[in-house]
Amino acid sequence: MARIVMKFGGTSMAGTERIRRVANIVRRQQAAGHEVAVVVSAMAGETDRLVGFCREANPLYDPAEYDVVVASGEQVTSGLLALTLQAMGCKARSWLGWQLPVHTKEAHAKARITSIEVEALLASMQSGEVAVIPGFQGLSADGRVTTLGRGGSDTSAVAIAAAIGADRCDIYTDVDGVYTTDPRIVARARKLEYVTYEEMLELASVGAKVLQTRSVGLAMKEGVRVQVLSSFVDDDAPSADELPGTMIVSDVEMEGLKMESQQVTGIAHDKNDARIVLTRVPDRPGAVSGIFSPLAEAAINVDMIIQNVGRDKGETDVTFTVPQADLARAQALLEDRRGEIGFNRIITDTKVAKISVVGVGMRSHAGIAATMFRSLAERGINVQAISTSEIKISVLIDEDETELAVRVLHTAYGLDVEGVAAE
Amino acid sequence: MARIVMKFGGTSMAGTERIRRVANIVRRQQAAGHEVAVVVSAMAGETDRLVGFCREANPLYDPAEYDVVVASGEQVTSGLLALTLQAMGCKARSWLGWQLPVHTKEAHAKARITSIEVEALLASMQSGEVAVIPGFQGLSADGRVTTLGRGGSDTSAVAIAAAIGADRCDIYTDVDGVYTTDPRIVARARKLEYVTYEEMLELASVGAKVLQTRSVGLAMKEGVRVQVLSSFVDDDAPSADELPGTMIVSDVEMEGLKMESQQVTGIAHDKNDARIVLTRVPDRPGAVSGIFSPLAEAAINVDMIIQNVGRDKGETDVTFTVPQADLARAQALLEDRRGEIGFNRIITDTKVAKISVVGVGMRSHAGIAATMFRSLAERGINVQAISTSEIKISVLIDEDETELAVRVLHTAYGLDVEGVAAE
Repeated sequence: MARIVMKFGGTSMAGTERIRRVANIVRRQQAAGHEVAVVVSAMAGETDRLVGFCREANPLYDPAEYDVVVASGEQVTSGLLALTLQAMGCKARSWLGWQLPVHTKEAHAKARITSIEVEALLASMQSGEVAVIPGFQGLSADGRVTTLGRGGSDTSAVAIAAAIGADRCDIYTDVDGVYTTDPRIVARARKLEYVTYEEMLELASVGAKVLQTRSVGLAMKEGVRVQVLSSFVDDDAPSADELPGTMIVSDVEMEGLKMESQQVTGIAHDKNDARIVLTRVPDRPGAVSGIFSPLAEAAINVDMIIQNVGRDKGETDVTFTVPQADLARAQALLEDRRGEIGFNRIITDTKVAKISVVGVGMRSHAGIAATMFRSLAERGINVQAISTSEIKISVLIDEDETELAVRVLHTAYGLDVEGVAAE
Repeated sequence: MARIVMKFGGTSMAGTERIRRVANIVRRQQAAGHEVAVVVSAMAGETDRLVGFCREANPLYDPAEYDVVVASGEQVTSGLLALTLQAMGCKARSWLGWQLPVHTKEAHAKARITSIEVEALLASMQSGEVAVIPGFQGLSADGRVTTLGRGGSDTSAVAIAAAIGADRCDIYTDVDGVYTTDPRIVARARKLEYVTYEEMLELASVGAKVLQTRSVGLAMKEGVRVQVLSSFVDDDAPSADELPGTMIVSDVEMEGLKMESQQVTGIAHDKNDARIVLTRVPDRPGAVSGIFSPLAEAAINVDMIIQNVGRDKGETDVTFTVPQADLARAQALLEDRRGEIGFNRIITDTKVAKISVVGVGMRSHAGIAATMFRSLAERGINVQAISTSEIKISVLIDEDETELAVRVLHTAYGLDVEGVAAE
């Protein structure tokens, strides 16, 4: 017998029939003898509908009232899943964010969980009742409804798993696990049985949007074992106990698993960045800080940075990337400081893609970068910028070459599954 | 300056544009210097949608989870109205049922309000903040969401008005007041400036469905002055302070108003009853109780009862009415007890209508009944059953004659407004 948290997203909760499938998956886990808590999202599309109402009511909406409105989506699905479980003969009850409560702090609409009271919840689960908990919502110190920000239900699930000391947190999605790369691009992509928290963080933050980044960080901090698996399976499919998805584990557990020593775990791609080049920036102390400090103050996330020696002595070109959504704002901020920074032109480009090679094995292996640059050069793919972390190397390339680059690298690092024709 | 509660129904809250109209009405009342609390229903159709989900999930739904689901409708509109008011520059915040809290007892899905904590609410109102409160919802003793049963938002508004000692509870609806009868039947129907609680109870319970019956009973008990008025008015229409609707008041206040001494206040009609006749029931002690006890135990409400002397000595025909919705159940119950009761046949008829003449003036005037029977007889309308209360006389007639009977009586009691052609 184990204590497990199961989390289902909006696509899985979209309508009576799908909720019935979810209830069936939950029922099987309870029948296997587990203590079960289920965290649910709102029906797909519902949060967008509610956010739309808020924007219509007041474009500069008060986040406290926004939270009152949007938290209702998960309230509905938690009640409906409890009802559906009861219809199947399962004891079940819902626990709203303010009922547990899930204490949160900081801003409305992007609150952070500080603690969760679980005594009543555990008593209920131990009595054989399935606990159904709306994700995404909590309670502020002054007794108001809060929400965690979009995608917050993953974080709710991990936080609850940590609070109740769950053996496992199963995140059910519309994919059946984490792949070596996007299977829509590479048919020979392979499902990973295990991935470390850090790899998952890099994969999630650079485009493999299976789990919300924050939830992975929390799982790492709290040591929660998270499994990503599909909610669209038949009744005779392997149960979640047989680990048919991808399990996210710590470095230590990964080493203990004695997997074949793969250097690269996966290839991610991300088309959401834009490139900015500032030309002829004076090459003097403080110049670069004059560029990046105002962007940091405006909470614009700068990623890859390159400083090229300019044509003229004492001048340099500075290249960096920002999220496309922040490009206009970044450009305006820099124009405002043109005199101060002393650059000549701003060149921007949104037709770029970031390709990242991720793997915890990199730490102990050399040559990964060399393989990357050689493979890309052989296919004539030009690298516009580079950034690295302990377990990741990212390059910026022309967006049109995204698919080609991903395929080339997937093959170069030996990630292709056998028996599937290359495309 | 007054302290007022304003209540808006689902039609008034259906969508961004209508909520904006509501906010405008609220803003005018606040600008007039009043302390304002607003009670809102869910958007028209939303509660039906949510109830539909519950039924699909589990036909024998757990009322505690049903309440979690359906209470979300009012949560959404309360947040949206607060946002819309803020967009107009009004300070406003929402107070959910569990936040005040509105304490309730008894069954889920039809809870009764026991008390409302109003200290924080009053402090907020006194600071100039409009309080927006979702109707229909409360909190049970064990900390779960409750709802008051359909139409419960009127009751919420009156209960809150009582709890905060409001000077007035304005119920905004899609009609502009209470009429002497249904204006769709009688073009010369007149809007009443004042009506007593008891008259309103009779008018509401026999078909003039302007206010939920329970809310009127509560207003009477708590002495809350309730005004019924329209939410569909232009900006230059008289404000609610000028009492453009119908004010519901006590007998004592009504006498103080020294209105012209009208004997009859209004004519109501109701087509939702069915007639049952049991023929040849033995005329012995206990026979009638044998009929009505099982119906009472099954919570079937029996209204008009007539006992005719049968053709044969020692036998009698018993006629009574029940709600059409309960007819099949009543018939089955009586058939089960056929031997015990000893009747010959059950005759049922759903093509009947109940016409009621209502007026607190009846208590002190004779001749009301005589006028009623004479007027109906003159037009050949057959009276199948009669029932009376202190302020009401009702007759059961053929459903086809409903409109004719209402018009005839409206004229007979001098209720027709002048200057409008009779139809």
